[in-house]
Amino acid sequence: MIDRINDTIAAPATIPGTGAVTIVRVSGPDALYVADSVVSLRSGKIADSRGYSIHYGEVAGLDEVLVSVFRAPHSYTGEDSVEISCHASEYIAAELLRRLIEAGARAAEPGEFTRRAFLNGKMDLAAQAEAVADIISSSAEASHRVAYAQLKGGFSRELSALRDQLLEMASLLELELDFSEEDVEFASRERLKELLDETISHIDRLSGSFRTGNAIKNGVPVAIAGAANTGKSTLLNALLGEERAIVSDIAGTTRDTIEETLTIGGILFRFVDTAGIRHTDETVERMGIDRTFEAIGRAEIVLGVLDSSLGPDEILASARQLSEAAKKAGCRLIFVLNKADLGLNKNVIIENSIVSLVENEEDIISLSAKTGYGLDSLRNRLQSLIKARIGDPEATLVTNLRHYEALVDATSALRRARTSLASSLPSDLVAEDLRSALTSLSAITTGGPITSTDILHTIFSRFCIGK
Amino acid sequence: MIDRINDTIAAPATIPGTGAVTIVRVSGPDALYVADSVVSLRSGKIADSRGYSIHYGEVAGLDEVLVSVFRAPHSYTGEDSVEISCHASEYIAAELLRRLIEAGARAAEPGEFTRRAFLNGKMDLAAQAEAVADIISSSAEASHRVAYAQLKGGFSRELSALRDQLLEMASLLELELDFSEEDVEFASRERLKELLDETISHIDRLSGSFRTGNAIKNGVPVAIAGAANTGKSTLLNALLGEERAIVSDIAGTTRDTIEETLTIGGILFRFVDTAGIRHTDETVERMGIDRTFEAIGRAEIVLGVLDSSLGPDEILASARQLSEAAKKAGCRLIFVLNKADLGLNKNVIIENSIVSLVENEEDIISLSAKTGYGLDSLRNRLQSLIKARIGDPEATLVTNLRHYEALVDATSALRRARTSLASSLPSDLVAEDLRSALTSLSAITTGGPITSTDILHTIFSRFCIGK
Repeated sequence: MIDRINDTIAAPATIPGTGAVTIVRVSGPDALYVADSVVSLRSGKIADSRGYSIHYGEVAGLDEVLVSVFRAPHSYTGEDSVEISCHASEYIAAELLRRLIEAGARAAEPGEFTRRAFLNGKMDLAAQAEAVADIISSSAEASHRVAYAQLKGGFSRELSALRDQLLEMASLLELELDFSEEDVEFASRERLKELLDETISHIDRLSGSFRTGNAIKNGVPVAIAGAANTGKSTLLNALLGEERAIVSDIAGTTRDTIEETLTIGGILFRFVDTAGIRHTDETVERMGIDRTFEAIGRAEIVLGVLDSSLGPDEILASARQLSEAAKKAGCRLIFVLNKADLGLNKNVIIENSIVSLVENEEDIISLSAKTGYGLDSLRNRLQSLIKARIGDPEATLVTNLRHYEALVDATSALRRARTSLASSLPSDLVAEDLRSALTSLSAITTGGPITSTDILHTIFSRFCIGK
Repeated sequence: MIDRINDTIAAPATIPGTGAVTIVRVSGPDALYVADSVVSLRSGKIADSRGYSIHYGEVAGLDEVLVSVFRAPHSYTGEDSVEISCHASEYIAAELLRRLIEAGARAAEPGEFTRRAFLNGKMDLAAQAEAVADIISSSAEASHRVAYAQLKGGFSRELSALRDQLLEMASLLELELDFSEEDVEFASRERLKELLDETISHIDRLSGSFRTGNAIKNGVPVAIAGAANTGKSTLLNALLGEERAIVSDIAGTTRDTIEETLTIGGILFRFVDTAGIRHTDETVERMGIDRTFEAIGRAEIVLGVLDSSLGPDEILASARQLSEAAKKAGCRLIFVLNKADLGLNKNVIIENSIVSLVENEEDIISLSAKTGYGLDSLRNRLQSLIKARIGDPEATLVTNLRHYEALVDATSALRRARTSLASSLPSDLVAEDLRSALTSLSAITTGGPITSTDILHTIFSRFCIGK
């Protein structure tokens, strides 16, 4: 246990003065007594009440309140807790909090309730506690689903299974060391290599999901690239125009001058309208490509917009540039043959000339940003590319940089162990690498044994006060 | 009953996505069943749960929640109600609400929960329901105290006693009318006159408290007046400077260019810095006074700032102007002898020359806005003037314009009745006026029998959704 919990904390769990009710939370060994000194029930005492019961009470001269009682360990924090629901007023909340503090509580720090939940083993893994923050900030279905799966402990169970496997290998190797004089081999080297390969590939899959997971959590970055006047902005507006209402239904999505977010099929996308590549002279063209490269470098998907009304050579040149840029950045490229309203027949010829530049022929979409033709195909393509990347909807996606880095550390150690095994190096070297991998994996779920206080601080300071 | 309540409503009771938790309320005959279709408890059904109990549950694939169950009539609305406490996320709240609506609930209108509480007799008087809105908007102790007393039903009980008295008088008079052929007199005319006088004076006290009550509710308006360069703005800044921190502790008080609010001793004051009276020529001087009159007309208290460094004649002329303006507006005048740092001895002479212009010699305060000397005296004086006006802290203060107007209507009718009695006019005329007074008083507590739907709409549309 890192912190000693012997005091009682209090904080509003909702923003005082907004909405219809304000909830003030109290948690700790004296929570029920502190609440009793501030709230008078119609009959009886809060300290004598059963857990999971609600009571009508009065805070003298201040407000009529409802008190929800939770008894350790059956509460969010795992401690005795009380939630006082009062009228939504800043004045009442401030005065109620003042009285609770006067009665012996301490004002809680940001995230302190969830931190206590973790320290009391209610939220047995830091991975779950972190999911709470992700859940709160999720604004679209897919990101919420990932965070919720993490909260439910799917990732934690997966890590736990991996740890058990590694622990078994390490234990067998260490047992051999104890009997080293006798030259026994408890662990079959071949079986060990197999197990290591399996584990490495499992962890690689997890860390490999980070790019997608992170994109889903924060919005999948899509760069809209192409030569000037191909209709990039019109395309962006067309995409946003129809969907804007849906976006604002769900969340107050942030908008700035260069990025627009849009939820398609429950997945949040962030569209970046890049500067058009200019063709005035070679130097400027080079600059244009560089600039596009930069935007593309941060994207998962590039929408390469081509003007189908231009000549075939010009289109092909543009397409090659875009393909080159997308390849360099490791992005998926979708060609958008814009201005399809000017003649679809022509597009068939163009498609044939550029199909070699894309991964899949479905990555070429004829579209008219002006009339809206083809927009649905583009949306479906974007959605299905990301859904394919998510793969099994039940599979774990890593969304947290700290987790990703720990997974990468773990596989490095395991690869060293694998090399040592292959080179028949001494068992103690292999065992040490296995231990190191275990430490990395444990850090994800427990906050890690060494720098845990720092990590915990980082995790819980992301929370608001009252959580 | 004005509305027929046969449907189930749902709305967030906190602003989704803020704070640590979001509460979604469901109320109505099907509330428990609607909640059961959306939330799965670990065991059992919400519809089978006892009132005032809390249950852990899951909204499939969305969130882990706590469900608080309230059974009619023991709930805020008086109906079966459920409060679902989920993680604070706009996405979760929107999706949860969508599922509740899919399961048969309807999105609640602003104030609809409190409106139902009133219609179901949980909040037996419109006066109380209105107090809920006042409680929510109170930002200082005194205004909160007034609203809370109203919520607790003090005003309602007082009105109810007055109504009973009037009803008895009216009944006796009407009984006489039934026996008019026999010329009996059930009600002693002298006793009736006495009772009427008592009732009129009681209602006069209530309606008379409106100016103070309203000032306390919205902040007591204080005009800072005086000639140019007497230090009015410095005084305002000095008052605010020390107290600003305390103000922002409690509430996000609104500030604009001409008004500053400040809480002194739990009472909210609104200070208006008026333009200085200029002495360049007579026309302009007149204009200056007019302008000051205007600001003073809206004030409860005038701080008449005098520059004690000027000559005695000049000070007296200024003081007389201010006194004239304050008298016209019916405001209490406090003279502030500013620049006391330049010589206190002189102030004694000035005080003697202007003491006849104030109600009480404590209404002259020597002060230095620059050094802060005397600020405490001024604050204490402001506070004690308002506390004296509040009088008995248990006495009812009328804070609502609708209530005030109804009280004034009631006394007009009662005065007519009193005149009729004095002129020995027929009993039926007296009885009619008593009935009219009763109708006015009833309108305060029930929303009135005639235009009740309109009044109810007005009252409840002040609420936010979810209340």
